Amino acid sequence: MAPVPNPCYRFLSRPVGFPDLAKDFQYETSRELDLDSVELHGSFLTQTRFLSIDPYMRGRMEPGTFMEWTPGQIWEGFGICEVIRSETAEFQPGDKLYGYLFFERYHAYAIQEAQPRMFRRLENSEGLPLSVYLGVCGLPGKTAFYGLKAIGAPKEGESIFVTTAAGVVGMTVCQLAKAWGLKVLGSTGSDEKVKFLTQEVGVDRAFNYKTASTAEEVRKFGGLDIYWDNVGGEVLDLALISMKQKGRIVICGHISEYNDESRYGIKNTWEMVYKDIKMQGFYVFTYEEQYADEFYSTVPKMVADGKIKYTEDITVGLENAGEVLLKVLNGKNVGKAILHI
Amino acid sequence: MAPVPNPCYRFLSRPVGFPDLAKDFQYETSRELDLDSVELHGSFLTQTRFLSIDPYMRGRMEPGTFMEWTPGQIWEGFGICEVIRSETAEFQPGDKLYGYLFFERYHAYAIQEAQPRMFRRLENSEGLPLSVYLGVCGLPGKTAFYGLKAIGAPKEGESIFVTTAAGVVGMTVCQLAKAWGLKVLGSTGSDEKVKFLTQEVGVDRAFNYKTASTAEEVRKFGGLDIYWDNVGGEVLDLALISMKQKGRIVICGHISEYNDESRYGIKNTWEMVYKDIKMQGFYVFTYEEQYADEFYSTVPKMVADGKIKYTEDITVGLENAGEVLLKVLNGKNVGKAILHI
Repeated sequence: MAPVPNPCYRFLSRPVGFPDLAKDFQYETSRELDLDSVELHGSFLTQTRFLSIDPYMRGRMEPGTFMEWTPGQIWEGFGICEVIRSETAEFQPGDKLYGYLFFERYHAYAIQEAQPRMFRRLENSEGLPLSVYLGVCGLPGKTAFYGLKAIGAPKEGESIFVTTAAGVVGMTVCQLAKAWGLKVLGSTGSDEKVKFLTQEVGVDRAFNYKTASTAEEVRKFGGLDIYWDNVGGEVLDLALISMKQKGRIVICGHISEYNDESRYGIKNTWEMVYKDIKMQGFYVFTYEEQYADEFYSTVPKMVADGKIKYTEDITVGLENAGEVLLKVLNGKNVGKAILHI
Repeated sequence: MAPVPNPCYRFLSRPVGFPDLAKDFQYETSRELDLDSVELHGSFLTQTRFLSIDPYMRGRMEPGTFMEWTPGQIWEGFGICEVIRSETAEFQPGDKLYGYLFFERYHAYAIQEAQPRMFRRLENSEGLPLSVYLGVCGLPGKTAFYGLKAIGAPKEGESIFVTTAAGVVGMTVCQLAKAWGLKVLGSTGSDEKVKFLTQEVGVDRAFNYKTASTAEEVRKFGGLDIYWDNVGGEVLDLALISMKQKGRIVICGHISEYNDESRYGIKNTWEMVYKDIKMQGFYVFTYEEQYADEFYSTVPKMVADGKIKYTEDITVGLENAGEVLLKVLNGKNVGKAILHI
């Protein structure tokens, strides 16, 4: 067969503040691949189906950060691909795999990469749409589940405040927390999302942080046993003084600060001393071994049973990767941002 | 017998910044007590021997803080007293007790107060000087031992950075860390104390933060598994970027900020996410039940055997309580600050 186009999406230069689409990224269309004749050397050839766009990607563009992207490299991130040829017994043509993929239409992965790229064959016995395995049943869902279990350590009857509660991680945290008997306060950035949180997600109370005072809302809600921090900055500082004795703060992400060169400084850490407060960041994969089985046997079933709702924001076309990332960084996506290739 | 003077030391008004001795405190000499005839109503009458002066006392003067002092009340704090009369079988005249005492020469405590005031008869089978039970074998020693065990969770071969390392808590942390096989970096505020740390305490490396760059010293020492935070502010911010993967930060106190109205804001909390960093404050008594037996069977013996060294800064006279506190807040004390009554 004749070679087919194999476009990819590249990271060209390190952004200052918000990425500049014209300068920092490039959609490259000149590469080609002959799917039938390309030598696999024991690897398996895949076609990319779905790619996940997440706020953490902005962090990867900073020098010296964890799993830093090098200018010139093809973007990488979690996605779902289908095996189209294979020279390893591990995977068969037709298998749908979840893993850490290149932003490229086709790619041959060596079997030695299967472990670091965390390839996992999706059995999907619940018959869920595949894209769900990038959202509520993928990394964001694991983030919510592992973080809440390992650091939040929730006990029935406790209270939790969740920021960016209408985001994919946030709303999963809210729903797990409700299912586990917690009282849930959620903050979000629009009145429409507030309605969504109270009416669809089922939190006890929600507010629009752009029009309501976070300090006042947290005060009315009462002290916090758990604070799920998706934003950092001023809200984290405020939460510190609102925590109950032995409160737990789950540092999940600081989206407010990825693009902010003059970060807000937290002043209330001394509150931690007398109140025995724990504040802990977490890299989701640290807990993969400990909780993955429990996660995959719990969450997809809860989703199939309608006990956990989710929303998706699917954009078609690899060429839109950068644009979708900007949308995510600006909080403009409604539901898990996914590229359909 | 005739009544004898029963002086006390009072907290009069809430300081702004550093306490003003003339305005905020008062040594009151007009009160008297007849030791033989005063009605005890089942309580036990004590004579105060030693009182501990600690930085946390400044925190108690702030409105709304934990165990806040009320203007007008007599100071309270840990001390050692001797029972001189008793109407309870629990304690006998001559018993030396450790507990949370009033800053008063004589006081009759109800037996119901024995629990919240944490009275403990000092057996002192090691024959240590009694004042030691206010320092390395008292609250500061427990702070070091419990915090290191419960939050630091040190493993042999790991590294720890200890701030105010020549302080009583700090030097106990350093010595326990060395005994448990850690590599120890200590910071302190004078060249003399640097010498003391390396030659007497036995840390691997020490520096004077007033003349050396903390950033540079920490960089040369290498990444940190544990940071023992006694100061908060800028050093805590710097430690955040110096922590290794799964590092633990023990928030013990923020002495730099007790008197600072415009606190330094921590900007590097986002480092916690990718590095799985835990930062935890602790109230020492939270761990009393869990670790007290281990502490009392370990530390006094280590002290008696010369394995843990300690220094004391003893001032005679209750009237000097405020002055000694100022000395402590200014870091001018050399060793555990203790009042001998």
